[in-house]
Amino acid sequence: MPGSQDPQAPGATRPPLHEVAHLGHIELLTPEPEASLRFFVDVLGLTENGREGNSVYLRTWDDYEHHTVKLTAHDTSGIRRVGLRASSQAALERRVAAVKQAGLGIGWKDGDPGLGPTYLFRDPDGHEMELYWDSEWYVPPPQLKPSLKNQAQAYPGRGVCVRRLDHVNFLARDVPPSGDFARDVLGGRVTEQVVLDDGAISAQWLHFTSKGYELVYTQDWTGSTGRLHHVAFAPDTREDILRAADICLDRGVFIETGPHKHAIQQTFFLYVYEPGGNRIELCNPVARLVLAPDWRTITWTEAERAKGQAWGLKTIESFHTHGTPPVR
Amino acid sequence: MPGSQDPQAPGATRPPLHEVAHLGHIELLTPEPEASLRFFVDVLGLTENGREGNSVYLRTWDDYEHHTVKLTAHDTSGIRRVGLRASSQAALERRVAAVKQAGLGIGWKDGDPGLGPTYLFRDPDGHEMELYWDSEWYVPPPQLKPSLKNQAQAYPGRGVCVRRLDHVNFLARDVPPSGDFARDVLGGRVTEQVVLDDGAISAQWLHFTSKGYELVYTQDWTGSTGRLHHVAFAPDTREDILRAADICLDRGVFIETGPHKHAIQQTFFLYVYEPGGNRIELCNPVARLVLAPDWRTITWTEAERAKGQAWGLKTIESFHTHGTPPVR
Amino acid sequence: MPGSQDPQAPGATRPPLHEVAHLGHIELLTPEPEASLRFFVDVLGLTENGREGNSVYLRTWDDYEHHTVKLTAHDTSGIRRVGLRASSQAALERRVAAVKQAGLGIGWKDGDPGLGPTYLFRDPDGHEMELYWDSEWYVPPPQLKPSLKNQAQAYPGRGVCVRRLDHVNFLARDVPPSGDFARDVLGGRVTEQVVLDDGAISAQWLHFTSKGYELVYTQDWTGSTGRLHHVAFAPDTREDILRAADICLDRGVFIETGPHKHAIQQTFFLYVYEPGGNRIELCNPVARLVLAPDWRTITWTEAERAKGQAWGLKTIESFHTHGTPPVR
Amino acid sequence: MPGSQDPQAPGATRPPLHEVAHLGHIELLTPEPEASLRFFVDVLGLTENGREGNSVYLRTWDDYEHHTVKLTAHDTSGIRRVGLRASSQAALERRVAAVKQAGLGIGWKDGDPGLGPTYLFRDPDGHEMELYWDSEWYVPPPQLKPSLKNQAQAYPGRGVCVRRLDHVNFLARDVPPSGDFARDVLGGRVTEQVVLDDGAISAQWLHFTSKGYELVYTQDWTGSTGRLHHVAFAPDTREDILRAADICLDRGVFIETGPHKHAIQQTFFLYVYEPGGNRIELCNPVARLVLAPDWRTITWTEAERAKGQAWGLKTIESFHTHGTPPVR
Repeated sequence: MPGSQDPQAPGATRPPLHEVAHLGHIELLTPEPEASLRFFVDVLGLTENGREGNSVYLRTWDDYEHHTVKLTAHDTSGIRRVGLRASSQAALERRVAAVKQAGLGIGWKDGDPGLGPTYLFRDPDGHEMELYWDSEWYVPPPQLKPSLKNQAQAYPGRGVCVRRLDHVNFLARDVPPSGDFARDVLGGRVTEQVVLDDGAISAQWLHFTSKGYELVYTQDWTGSTGRLHHVAFAPDTREDILRAADICLDRGVFIETGPHKHAIQQTFFLYVYEPGGNRIELCNPVARLVLAPDWRTITWTEAERAKGQAWGLKTIESFHTHGTPPVR
Repeated sequence: MPGSQDPQAPGATRPPLHEVAHLGHIELLTPEPEASLRFFVDVLGLTENGREGNSVYLRTWDDYEHHTVKLTAHDTSGIRRVGLRASSQAALERRVAAVKQAGLGIGWKDGDPGLGPTYLFRDPDGHEMELYWDSEWYVPPPQLKPSLKNQAQAYPGRGVCVRRLDHVNFLARDVPPSGDFARDVLGGRVTEQVVLDDGAISAQWLHFTSKGYELVYTQDWTGSTGRLHHVAFAPDTREDILRAADICLDRGVFIETGPHKHAIQQTFFLYVYEPGGNRIELCNPVARLVLAPDWRTITWTEAERAKGQAWGLKTIESFHTHGTPPVR
Repeated sequence: MPGSQDPQAPGATRPPLHEVAHLGHIELLTPEPEASLRFFVDVLGLTENGREGNSVYLRTWDDYEHHTVKLTAHDTSGIRRVGLRASSQAALERRVAAVKQAGLGIGWKDGDPGLGPTYLFRDPDGHEMELYWDSEWYVPPPQLKPSLKNQAQAYPGRGVCVRRLDHVNFLARDVPPSGDFARDVLGGRVTEQVVLDDGAISAQWLHFTSKGYELVYTQDWTGSTGRLHHVAFAPDTREDILRAADICLDRGVFIETGPHKHAIQQTFFLYVYEPGGNRIELCNPVARLVLAPDWRTITWTEAERAKGQAWGLKTIESFHTHGTPPVR
Repeated sequence: MPGSQDPQAPGATRPPLHEVAHLGHIELLTPEPEASLRFFVDVLGLTENGREGNSVYLRTWDDYEHHTVKLTAHDTSGIRRVGLRASSQAALERRVAAVKQAGLGIGWKDGDPGLGPTYLFRDPDGHEMELYWDSEWYVPPPQLKPSLKNQAQAYPGRGVCVRRLDHVNFLARDVPPSGDFARDVLGGRVTEQVVLDDGAISAQWLHFTSKGYELVYTQDWTGSTGRLHHVAFAPDTREDILRAADICLDRGVFIETGPHKHAIQQTFFLYVYEPGGNRIELCNPVARLVLAPDWRTITWTEAERAKGQAWGLKTIESFHTHGTPPVR
């Protein structure tokens, strides 16, 4: 399995890091649109920024773009699409060419509100993604204008107050093809991974920014494709996450596990399910950044994973079984 | 000035500590009732619990009694009354007898909603106070029921989410008579004080519980009587206070000074003005308690006060000039 | 079982709250004296304050008395004694008389360094305790003098930096006799308890201060007597406890469970074992206090306990099996 | 002044962002080498990693390279050099060519321990800087080995425990030439700046990573060149910075201002002086990142600056006068 065990090894075709500037937005599906909307607005503290058809556009308070989440009523749960912003028009063109060459392109479309031309494609496991460069900067209405001009929107002071979309964790029937695609076609780097005793890679964490990861692929034990493990939002501090646990407790939001600290990437986390069934992580990386341009992929073994999370919490069973949409 | 320089010295007439169990509630006056109400509900996170005439009853989320604040529309700002809960019916009777003997009693009245017979009186500086024992325990409506049964009400997740009324800081034309009254008649203990170079006591902090203080007297440099310096509410953590500063910043609440740490009592603080003009402190004592039954009053000199707060912040000028109601 | 199910009901013989001012100190036994000493000094951040025979005296940085922990080399682990400071000389005499009347007194002895006459006794389960009033206030040497005069000692900035001894949790073959003793003879109040489906009380939390508890009795399933479940120390914040988990992780200190939030008393906790085998809790009550003078004992059922801790963490098996000294 | 008022406008000669991967290390000069060393080791929690001549190599606990600070005994204070790691060998070569073309190169030298060939140069204001690619990854000795393999070194649990060097703030007689150099030759982007009423740029913040800044130029009102305003280190949380203030208070470290939150970049900060006189910032960006590839430089006016820091703290006078080395 060339490359996979040594994901940072030089390869002729590998693009430089930072072709993708950052994760832009997601479209999330919910069979409980009203309850899911209340969760995102009242519990997480997002702000509505328009509606269209069966979808509501929602934004975290420090997102400079039009929206962070497009929440769409659907007959089941799951993630419809992930948007990645290219780091320039030229980078967009290079990445689109590479996607086409990989045979996974779908085509250009008009972007959602606030977005210019957008190139739609699929990763090898079938998750829909889109790349774009043109993006309107958000201009808050007077009542949402922040006091400090280097901030996108006033701090909401409502619920958990997540600042940004932090990462997306896909499930994949086979991790390596999708991980390789994200690395070789999109220009991500694998910062950490899990390799099972039989040599199979069961999870890979990739980054595009100075954070340790924005995109994660985890093996889907059901053998399904295109599913979601979780999407993660970042409030400002670990204390915000402890407070979030109290908010979820008293609002009847299902807490799956946490708060605790991941061994992998060392993120402080809390996992809950939004009313539509999608798993949501609230996460804080504390001050950790992965700045080394020659970062060496950290590989975790089954034995190491069996030790549980950083401070010893055992990984909860549903973490290996629950994904969205549910498997019928 | 016998006793004042050595406020803990044994005195024949001094009651034991804990005759007053804790600070119960305040009645606050505001010339901007709607804006003040929005401040207490949306910014501090209190919950309305009834209205009566020009008053709205408000409660912090972990108050076991009916209300924490009675907010009353008035032609000016200030504090109308402070309620103290006695530690038993017998303690109430002992304290009422002592107040009468001090010649400062007004008389019994029916208490506000949730309160039984209440004895009204004034401190030597003229601040109205009331003592009571009977108090109905708050029963939350279904939508405010907490998940944990050892908590009074669901965590609101709205604004600063203050847990309790922490202390009241009165201004007094002369501090010692009021401080002595609180000690000798009400049974408080002076944990800390400021003594000026000329020997005058300009401030005293008294406690009734294991916290370092619940009642403070500070000299009113205008020579007025019966005024308020501030009332203080405690959210859970220092992080909540840092977050509160961001909330106030983006809601247009005037921040007077802080966040910082007091040298006296070491409380982490933020001072703001509610829209009616009353100064509100958000405070967190971290884990500090004053448990010593023979605590020795800490006396701070002018020179020590001139060093500023714990980490060096200079005391802001308005701290010495702003009180409510304003002096005409 | 009169009284036990309704532990706050008025009783002719019950002393007022606050006869015991607070938990004073503990004597802890360790078969690994050097390693245990390093744990208390380097990991928890205590300061040595003298040695005597096989014992080292150690203090938390905000303890106003001579020492907080007497660490004694022994052939096994466990707790030898708990010291309680009376709230006055008169209160001491009243409590000693009550202990004698209960037939559990041992007698007066000279106290350890810093302590005056001390009355030794046992609780019904056989744990040794002592009551005292005279206590020398700690005077720090120049290098440990704090900048703020209302603090006992300079902040150590070493390891976890626990501020104070928070509570002691004894194991008892039968909880009610010891809980009743602590309530009826020592003057504590039962703030929370666990009652099993068969009506047996399996745990009681008692307080003497404005904190929710200082003394806890939990049923010892081995049927042993006189054992220790854990002693708890309080650093300043929840963040300190998260940081403590990292410190323990990298110092090789065994982390048993946490950090998480207890349902009972809502304390934020981390449990570790010191090298001698004694379980140590690092705990933070956030801003929670139990101020109500008529607090109603909260009773938790088996079904409620089965839900786990506040945010859902299941109680770890060893929590029910590990106590010190180990049962042979 | 083309470009300066619109520092992100496209320019033919501007390199892409990320040619410099991150700030690598600094060489700091001190006339009090022993006291400065104690400060870095005991107060900040750095670890010594070798000595050479008059210099001690020190590292923050999550630095993957050999050292973070080279502390050198000298007759005065100040910063001797700042090291920047290129993002690849090719990027190094491109940047060196650009520096040579700008006429500011000094030449190649053997790097300090752990570093390969290093190119030395000066910025227009005369500050020495160096660029390098080859860098040995740090391998901790057994006693400093972390429990989690994605971490460079065990968490020290000593003092403030800063995780990384965060940024360097130079003073410059004229800001624009140096800011333009950092942008046009090194490939940084100006994320925020201050423009005075007369149109002069008095400060610029530049970033190379997803953080908001790593390099800052502030006008030196003394008209000197090559001086330092401060270097900044990042502990994990805001709570760590509050704790740091207590540590500094009780260790006699001079606290200049803070803790508070900057309006510019919104960093939570504390400024102290190390014993050699150099200003040290302890900073935490909370979760703020600057991810937009087309970030628009935020320009602050004099009137906006006059409002003070984010929550209203006035900028302290010495902030405009103290730099190192002192002006004779």
